[in-house]
Amino acid sequence: MRSITEELAQSCCGMRYGDIPPSVRHQARRCILDCLGVALAGAEHETTDILRRHVRSMGGAEQSAIIGSEQLVSVEQAALVNGTMAHVHDFDDTHLSTVIHPSCTIVPAALAVGQWKAAGGRDLLEAVVTGMEAALRIGLAVYPEHYDRGWHITGTVGVFGAAIAAGRLLQLDAAQLTAAIGTAATQSSGLRELFGTMGKPYLAGHAACNGVRAALLAEAGFSSSHQPLQAPRGWAQVVSSSAELDRVLSDWGQHFEVLDVGVKPYPSGVVTHPAIDAVYRCRRRHGVKAEEVKWAKLVAHPLVLELTGKKEPQTGLEAKFSVYHCVAAAFSYDNLGVGEFTDRMVADSRIAQLRDKVTVQTDSRCRPDQARLEVVTKSGENFSTSVEHATGSPDNPMSDDQLEDKFTMLTEPMLGANQAHKLMQMCWEVEQTDPAALLAAAAST
Amino acid sequence: MRSITEELAQSCCGMRYGDIPPSVRHQARRCILDCLGVALAGAEHETTDILRRHVRSMGGAEQSAIIGSEQLVSVEQAALVNGTMAHVHDFDDTHLSTVIHPSCTIVPAALAVGQWKAAGGRDLLEAVVTGMEAALRIGLAVYPEHYDRGWHITGTVGVFGAAIAAGRLLQLDAAQLTAAIGTAATQSSGLRELFGTMGKPYLAGHAACNGVRAALLAEAGFSSSHQPLQAPRGWAQVVSSSAELDRVLSDWGQHFEVLDVGVKPYPSGVVTHPAIDAVYRCRRRHGVKAEEVKWAKLVAHPLVLELTGKKEPQTGLEAKFSVYHCVAAAFSYDNLGVGEFTDRMVADSRIAQLRDKVTVQTDSRCRPDQARLEVVTKSGENFSTSVEHATGSPDNPMSDDQLEDKFTMLTEPMLGANQAHKLMQMCWEVEQTDPAALLAAAAST
Repeated sequence: MRSITEELAQSCCGMRYGDIPPSVRHQARRCILDCLGVALAGAEHETTDILRRHVRSMGGAEQSAIIGSEQLVSVEQAALVNGTMAHVHDFDDTHLSTVIHPSCTIVPAALAVGQWKAAGGRDLLEAVVTGMEAALRIGLAVYPEHYDRGWHITGTVGVFGAAIAAGRLLQLDAAQLTAAIGTAATQSSGLRELFGTMGKPYLAGHAACNGVRAALLAEAGFSSSHQPLQAPRGWAQVVSSSAELDRVLSDWGQHFEVLDVGVKPYPSGVVTHPAIDAVYRCRRRHGVKAEEVKWAKLVAHPLVLELTGKKEPQTGLEAKFSVYHCVAAAFSYDNLGVGEFTDRMVADSRIAQLRDKVTVQTDSRCRPDQARLEVVTKSGENFSTSVEHATGSPDNPMSDDQLEDKFTMLTEPMLGANQAHKLMQMCWEVEQTDPAALLAAAAST
Repeated sequence: MRSITEELAQSCCGMRYGDIPPSVRHQARRCILDCLGVALAGAEHETTDILRRHVRSMGGAEQSAIIGSEQLVSVEQAALVNGTMAHVHDFDDTHLSTVIHPSCTIVPAALAVGQWKAAGGRDLLEAVVTGMEAALRIGLAVYPEHYDRGWHITGTVGVFGAAIAAGRLLQLDAAQLTAAIGTAATQSSGLRELFGTMGKPYLAGHAACNGVRAALLAEAGFSSSHQPLQAPRGWAQVVSSSAELDRVLSDWGQHFEVLDVGVKPYPSGVVTHPAIDAVYRCRRRHGVKAEEVKWAKLVAHPLVLELTGKKEPQTGLEAKFSVYHCVAAAFSYDNLGVGEFTDRMVADSRIAQLRDKVTVQTDSRCRPDQARLEVVTKSGENFSTSVEHATGSPDNPMSDDQLEDKFTMLTEPMLGANQAHKLMQMCWEVEQTDPAALLAAAAST
C-alpha cells in the first residue's frame, strides 16, 4: 500500500495544465505577479543586500537570476536570495486559514529551476499550482497547533512546496518526488521567535533553497524515507501533536486551497489589516486627522496581540509586527506602503506619540479578518468604525485592478513605467512566456 | 539582564586555550583525528558522491577543501559535503548521554572556516571545544524528550555547535554570536524517520553548512532574536516539552561534557555496540563459530530495538540500524568495519540466515552500554555472555592505541601508510599545525 506521501507525490506528478480550472490558473498568475512585485520592492532592503553579498562571496555557477538584476547565481542561491526578498517587506500573499505565505517560497524556487532548465510558462504555472496546493494542504494538516507552538509555518511547510514545484520542473517521477519530500521534511525548520528580525524573511529563502536542493538530490538518486510525513516519527507527528494528515489528499483536484490565498494590501502582518482598514474607513467617514486623535481603541482577534503586539518597535521590520505602529501610520499616511515601515518612520516622534495613544483589546469572538475601532478626538468627539472582512481576505479579495495598482506602485520606481507594465502583462499571460523571460523583464537596467 | 543565549555567547567568546584543561585538549585532538578518519572512509560512499557532484554542479568559490581531495569549494559547500561524509558510515563519535554525534557537524564546519580564514591549529582546537561544549549542553537541556519525539538530535543541535565553532574562527563578538545562535535556531531541523537512508548523514552536512552560514550572516550584520533559545516560543520550548535550559551554563568552564564523547569501535548505531562486544566475547571465550549458531538471544536496553530494530535491512545504510545484522556480522567477521555494512554484505545469504536466528528482548533495567547474549549451538551447547560497558562508552573508552588502529584501518587504503601516519601525528599535535595543512595532508594524491 502506498503511504500518504507516496500518494501525494503521485497526485503532484499527475497535476496537468488541463486539470487546473481557469480560476486556479488565474490565481496562480496573480500569485506570480504579486510575488515578483514584492520581491522587486524588497531588492534594495538591507536584508537582501546582506544575502546578495553573501552568495557573491560564496561564488556559484551562473544558472538563475537574482530578481531585479541580471546577475546569475546558482539555482540554490537564486532561490535563497529571491525567497528572502519576496518576504522581506511582509507584503506577500497569505493563505489566511494557515497564515502561510505560500508564494515567497514556491514561486522563487520555481522561477530559479525554471530558468535553469529552460522550462516554459505553462510548466511554471503547473509547478506553482502543484507546489502551492500540496504545501497548503500539508499546512492545514498541522495548523493551528503547529503554529501556536511557535513554528514559522511559512518555512516549515514552504520547503515542501518548493521541493514539489522544483521537482515538477525537473520532471521527477513519483518515487523521486517522494524522496524529495523526505529530504524536505528533514530540512523543515523555522521559529516565530525571529519575527521582526532579518531571520523572518531569511527563512522563506532558506525554505526555497532547501526545497530546490531536495529536488535536485532526489533527481540524483538520493534516498529517503517512503513515509516521511505520516510515519510514527514522521514530520507531522514530530512537529504537531494533533496532525490530521487525511486533509492532505481530501478532494485533491476538486477543491483548490490556492483559491484561498489572499494578496496583501499593506506590508505588515496580515492580522493588522482589519485595523488598518478600520482607520482608513474612520478617516473617510468621519474625516478624523492624526493630530486630532486623543486615543484610539482597537477590538480585534487575539492573534493580533500575539503576533503584532510590539508596543514600541525599534526597527522597520519590528514595525510590521506592531499593530500600534500600523494604526498610527494609517492615521498619518494615505497609502500604507513600504515607506511607512522603515527604521526612520519608526523613530519619527509624531508616529511614536500616536502609537502611545492606541490601545488594543482582544476578543475571541472577533474573526481574524474583522476589527472594531473606537476613536475619541481631542475635541471630545467619539467615532466607532467596524470592518467585517479586511481587504485582501478571502471574503474581500484584492481585485485584479487593486493588484495591478500595488504592483505598479512597487515596481515603477525600479523598472520605470513601461517595463513595469510589460512585466505585468507577461505575468497575466504567463503561459505565453517562460521563467527566463520573466526574470529578464524583472531586471532593472 | 542578559538572556541565557547572550550568556552562552559571552561564555563561548571567552573560552581561551589556557582555560581548556589538558584532558579536554587531548579529547579534542582525538575528536579531530577520528573525524578525519571516518570522513576519509566516507569519501567514496555513494551518498558523498551524489553530494560532491551536486556541489560541483552548483559551482562555488575555491575556499575550502573537500576532505580526501584537493578540490576547493565554497566554505558552505565544504561543510555540507564533509559533514555528510563524516557521518555516512555512522562510525563517528557519540556523546552517549544525548546520542549526539558531535564531531561530524562541528569539526567539518571548523575545518572549512579555519582553512578559509587561515586560522591556526590552536584556534581550531578552541573552536571545536567551544562549539562542542555548547552543543552538548544544549542537547542535554532537551534530551531525552526531544529525541524520543523523533528529532535527529545530531542535526537539530549540531547546527548550534557548527555556528559557534565557525563564529569563533570568524572572531565574532558576543552580540554577533548571539545572532548566529538565533539564525542557527531557526534552521535547526532533522527527523529520525530518515535513519537508514542517505538523509541521515546528509543532515550532519546540512547542519554544518547552516551553522557556517549562520556565523557568516551574523558577521555581515544579520539580526536575530536576543533570546532564541529560551523565549516563550524560542527553540527549546518549540522542540521540547520539558527543556531544562539551566543545564546549558551550569558549571561552564569547570565541567566539560566533551570528555563524555566516545569514539566508536564499530560503524553502526552506538546502541548496537554492547551486542557486538558480547558476540566477540562469546567467540573469544567459548570459541563459537557462525556456522554453529542455532539461535542467539540478545537482552538489551529498549533503545536497541527502537533505533536498530530493522529485522531485514535492504541496504548497507539500513544494516547500521539492524542489531540483527550487527550480531550476524560479528559472528562471521573478526573486525566489524565499513566493509561489513555494504549492500553486498546485506544481501549475503549466509549473513541473512544468521540474522534470522537472532532474537532481541529489551529490558529497561539494562543500561544503554550493557548487553547479555545467550547462544545455543547446533550441538546443544548453551553459552551466556555479559558486557557491562561497551567499548567506546564513557566507562570503557577507546584507548589512544585503539583509536590509532581504527584511524589506520580507515585511512591507509586511501592515503597509504606514510601519509596516514603523518596525518595522525599532525592531529596529535594539532596546535603546531593549521586547518589548511591538515586538509592538505588528508588529500589522497
